[in-house]
Amino acid sequence: MTSKYIPSLELIEPAADGETWAVARLISRAEAGAAEVREAVGRIYKMAGRAHVIGITGVPGSGKSTLVGKLVTHLRRTGQSVAIVAIDPSSPYSGGSILGDRIRMSEHALDPGVYIRSMATRGAVGGMAHAALDVVDILDLAGFDKIIIETVGVGQDEVEIAKASHTTVVVSAPGLGDDIQAIKAGILEIADIHVVSKCDRSDANRTMTDLKTMLKDGIASVLTRDWRPPVVGTSSLTDEGFAELLAALDAHLQALDGEPGRLRRADIAAFRLRKAAETLMLERLRAEGAFGAEGPRVAERRADPYAAASAIVQQFSRETTHV
Amino acid sequence: MTSKYIPSLELIEPAADGETWAVARLISRAEAGAAEVREAVGRIYKMAGRAHVIGITGVPGSGKSTLVGKLVTHLRRTGQSVAIVAIDPSSPYSGGSILGDRIRMSEHALDPGVYIRSMATRGAVGGMAHAALDVVDILDLAGFDKIIIETVGVGQDEVEIAKASHTTVVVSAPGLGDDIQAIKAGILEIADIHVVSKCDRSDANRTMTDLKTMLKDGIASVLTRDWRPPVVGTSSLTDEGFAELLAALDAHLQALDGEPGRLRRADIAAFRLRKAAETLMLERLRAEGAFGAEGPRVAERRADPYAAASAIVQQFSRETTHV
Repeated sequence: MTSKYIPSLELIEPAADGETWAVARLISRAEAGAAEVREAVGRIYKMAGRAHVIGITGVPGSGKSTLVGKLVTHLRRTGQSVAIVAIDPSSPYSGGSILGDRIRMSEHALDPGVYIRSMATRGAVGGMAHAALDVVDILDLAGFDKIIIETVGVGQDEVEIAKASHTTVVVSAPGLGDDIQAIKAGILEIADIHVVSKCDRSDANRTMTDLKTMLKDGIASVLTRDWRPPVVGTSSLTDEGFAELLAALDAHLQALDGEPGRLRRADIAAFRLRKAAETLMLERLRAEGAFGAEGPRVAERRADPYAAASAIVQQFSRETTHV
Repeated sequence: MTSKYIPSLELIEPAADGETWAVARLISRAEAGAAEVREAVGRIYKMAGRAHVIGITGVPGSGKSTLVGKLVTHLRRTGQSVAIVAIDPSSPYSGGSILGDRIRMSEHALDPGVYIRSMATRGAVGGMAHAALDVVDILDLAGFDKIIIETVGVGQDEVEIAKASHTTVVVSAPGLGDDIQAIKAGILEIADIHVVSKCDRSDANRTMTDLKTMLKDGIASVLTRDWRPPVVGTSSLTDEGFAELLAALDAHLQALDGEPGRLRRADIAAFRLRKAAETLMLERLRAEGAFGAEGPRVAERRADPYAAASAIVQQFSRETTHV
């Protein structure tokens, strides 16, 4: 390991060899949104595509974080390496991260087959940190078998996670309040696999039954054709259900062989491309100070935002043509 | 009231007179993202700007929904009219809405001084339904004194709500789990006013003290200069604290007089403009089928998303110049 600056393109080879220092640097630069790293990320994208990308989401209090820790333990026993990208609803202003992921995952701290990275959303366009998609490719290049994207938020991030993952796991739990159950209903249909955690609790059976009833009423996976999402009960206390969860993950990966997988990968690519285009366009508009001129007129309500935005888009197209 | 189609521009006048049928139609069209309504919304924007826009957010289980209901009751006693826009993390696929807002607010159902509208986020760019900003202006035009934007999600939406509101209220509650408290920490600093709900509970004092201690350590409002966010304890059971909350809302509105208010309105306008520009650009890219050609090459990892996006942005600028 060296401390001198190494251009991102030169980090690709050691990262592909699984060198953690190179992986960590690429990730940091991608997270910072450095323009210098983008060419490297582009090349990495073309080299990647081997890992199984799993989105895990669930309402607060669902025990999702503990579940991920346990899942990692079980995946490791099968010999698979695992990377976790935890999308963290940290402060968009101070940038402070709030989760105790490193503490929670401390049992894996010395295991070179496990890599954990928390990422802040920090007011990123489109909810989920855009850079998370780059980070997934970097970890894929580094050879991790499973890459878990975990969100803590509830809402937009969950939709985006599903759009960027091969398999989406939605975690429910017994005994949550109405407020939380209502939110859960909103994310049910992004699930390829449902997990009911804390199934050592006496009220877990009802949660399982309720969920299965809802699914019987016709909620199939909206993202994987011909796939009926199973409901798996787990207990992080007793280790119950984790073998079944691993089997469900494998079964879904199998189901993605052939046409359904091709469609899903096409959806993910389309999402990735749209994100990249948004990022590039907004970067250029900001760099050109496009919002500065019209902003005050909009603030004083002398111009309306759509007319002003339309003028900006026109201006943008003329300027980029001359470049 | 008539059932024939009335162009949006012709709905402005009756909406400005407070005619609910015209307000409702404009809102529905804005929510549907109809291009026809945009010119009307642009004009409405220039006529609006009188209402006090209040963002109310809080983690699930914080009793925020009940609090909003009570707050409306107390605001109505002062003679002010109130509109509520509830941002609803409903399904992005089926579009189904999940909240029982109409039930919860049923005590206000027959009061013409109260207007309630739930809006789905439905995978909107940037988290919060873009149309919510249009809806606020329509309600402003209709003469509502207070417009409350309420979010149920946790994460990106809360940041966006703060960027679009004059005053942001963050609701905490005693006795929530660590998972939820951690999320709360992430949204603390967007608050202009903190509310600790359920302060009839015996453990509410500790929550109040914890919050005040955190604030003493220097968390000031990041959005309103020279404003120290107060901590208000409320109980929806005993009505305690609502007079204080109303006073805090008034005090913050006063604090926005002059320069701090000018800066805040400039921030809101900049945010609105950026949102409108994003919307217009993505609409045009989609309409032109810009993503269709490069998508398959990205899916097969023969092209990288940044290079492909860059090509799309170039193409976009050439095409718009010829139009």
